[in-house]
Amino acid sequence: MGNFKEDIAKVRAFAFDVDGVFTDGSLSVGLDTDFIRTYYARDGFAVVTAIKRGYPVAIITGGRGESITRRFGLMGVKDIYLGSNEKLGAITDFMQKYNLKPEEVMYVGDDIPDIAPMQVVGMAVCPSDAAVEVKAVSRYVSGFPGGRGCVRDVVEQVLRARDHWFDGFTDVPSV
Amino acid sequence: MGNFKEDIAKVRAFAFDVDGVFTDGSLSVGLDTDFIRTYYARDGFAVVTAIKRGYPVAIITGGRGESITRRFGLMGVKDIYLGSNEKLGAITDFMQKYNLKPEEVMYVGDDIPDIAPMQVVGMAVCPSDAAVEVKAVSRYVSGFPGGRGCVRDVVEQVLRARDHWFDGFTDVPSV
Amino acid sequence: MGNFKEDIAKVRAFAFDVDGVFTDGSLSVGLDTDFIRTYYARDGFAVVTAIKRGYPVAIITGGRGESITRRFGLMGVKDIYLGSNEKLGAITDFMQKYNLKPEEVMYVGDDIPDIAPMQVVGMAVCPSDAAVEVKAVSRYVSGFPGGRGCVRDVVEQVLRARDHWFDGFTDVPSV
Amino acid sequence: MGNFKEDIAKVRAFAFDVDGVFTDGSLSVGLDTDFIRTYYARDGFAVVTAIKRGYPVAIITGGRGESITRRFGLMGVKDIYLGSNEKLGAITDFMQKYNLKPEEVMYVGDDIPDIAPMQVVGMAVCPSDAAVEVKAVSRYVSGFPGGRGCVRDVVEQVLRARDHWFDGFTDVPSV
Repeated sequence: MGNFKEDIAKVRAFAFDVDGVFTDGSLSVGLDTDFIRTYYARDGFAVVTAIKRGYPVAIITGGRGESITRRFGLMGVKDIYLGSNEKLGAITDFMQKYNLKPEEVMYVGDDIPDIAPMQVVGMAVCPSDAAVEVKAVSRYVSGFPGGRGCVRDVVEQVLRARDHWFDGFTDVPSV
Repeated sequence: MGNFKEDIAKVRAFAFDVDGVFTDGSLSVGLDTDFIRTYYARDGFAVVTAIKRGYPVAIITGGRGESITRRFGLMGVKDIYLGSNEKLGAITDFMQKYNLKPEEVMYVGDDIPDIAPMQVVGMAVCPSDAAVEVKAVSRYVSGFPGGRGCVRDVVEQVLRARDHWFDGFTDVPSV
Repeated sequence: MGNFKEDIAKVRAFAFDVDGVFTDGSLSVGLDTDFIRTYYARDGFAVVTAIKRGYPVAIITGGRGESITRRFGLMGVKDIYLGSNEKLGAITDFMQKYNLKPEEVMYVGDDIPDIAPMQVVGMAVCPSDAAVEVKAVSRYVSGFPGGRGCVRDVVEQVLRARDHWFDGFTDVPSV
Repeated sequence: MGNFKEDIAKVRAFAFDVDGVFTDGSLSVGLDTDFIRTYYARDGFAVVTAIKRGYPVAIITGGRGESITRRFGLMGVKDIYLGSNEKLGAITDFMQKYNLKPEEVMYVGDDIPDIAPMQVVGMAVCPSDAAVEVKAVSRYVSGFPGGRGCVRDVVEQVLRARDHWFDGFTDVPSV
């Protein structure tokens, strides 16, 4: 493990848990069979920007439901692993598919099922309100909580470190 | 009433109110006949873990609606008492069914209708934002509010005290 | 205007605005024709208790939609004035119907359209986050914001002052 | 650029981004094809008041969906630009349609796609939680965040500066 600023510039792919990372962990339940999850526009802007710059992005969640697929499909995410009780298999599959070395992958997780995949990537990070066990295995703890800027923070840091951040984004939709 | 650390290790079953405990008390009302309630993924993770470890879990709520049944059914909860205006009957039924002594039951409530059932169990606990009357009858007031970690806090404390917490949960889904 | 503790004990009826009082002012808009409003279970408990004790309760809102009628109808509210752009007419109608003197009515409002009805009752009160113009005409500013305890606070204060608060509420549903 | 109090009194039209300005950036996603966005009643009151006073109001958003059109249509907004990935074209169209000089237009934005339109108006403003790049190009940063009073704050300031604020609003509905 070297200098954080140097190491974050090695990241060329992202893997994200959903609940507690892209959301604050809230699951709204009414009569619909799918839960309602609440995302953050500014997080979405960062992920869409990364995808437009060519970064592979994976969603790895224990959750299920077409609403997850639709949300991330609209953002252009191609690798969506639902119902992943065993997240180690999903991250391994993603890394093999894109020929990614551990130091090239950032994984963002918040709870105990994320610990296993966080231990096989070089850049494990978490929101400010992650479970204490997850903070213990994270290289970086964002100052922002899940669903309110954690994703924006970590994606923006990688893209800035690689000169891929803001240089005239008139083509990026809000999502 | 003895030492708190010793007493919490005696708990082998959980009973929970819903509104203000599993949620922050919010009831979202649109055109659907059921209210939308907002749960917390990390609370759900703790309850599913307890159920997998064999702990009986009851839901005792004055609320109604199939959305409550579905939410807790997905988590594996078997004993769901809806429309319980008289919660004393529900907790008594639950304790008899599983042959539970008072000191073996934790009840988590937040408002006045919870006081009666809280007085018949050994371990009455509440969220940080419970009504003042409820705090007065609680053995322990969580540092976390309803819907944002109170359930996780109290379940995790019991499971840690009994060596049932984190020991490789790759089989636990996020819910 | 006399002693506050004495004056609050004279209140025997309640009139409430909805948005910003029973809610935090949030209006969630999707494809449904009605907005989704988010209420607070503990506020509802207080209002249901007041109704069970015989207090007339009115809802006076500029909002519309059957979801408002259904929410308050379930609580037992009989006097619901929707689409009230001219709230003075509604409060006057309510006071005449129940033969209420100004000092017998509490009105809870948060924004400029509430000022007119607040000026014809004896006990005008508002949430902690009311508009500054509304605070200026309020007899009491709750320490709790709209949708998160303001209603509970003011109803509970009246009922306590009149010895109508907690004396064995096993018959009160959570709503 | 002159005195702020003088300059804000020159504003006679408003253009707003939606996500992060009229909302806190939350996008709630369930099975419906449209996202659920959560607006603030008190912001709506200010915008309806401005429209009643004759101010042209534009919505310029990268978002799509009939729920946006319906929300702002109910408020009386006539110029709604959806799916605006290139917001410069939308603001230019709006300014030409109403023959507006730059100093007569307030634009409220929160994220990078708003920077281009903010640079062609005289009064670029943003919520307290805007992206740092947006704050850098704003003439004024509201003390209120998106979706919780930023719109109310800036519209009210303009209307007060022009003596168009509260003078007996019994005809203004809550929206």
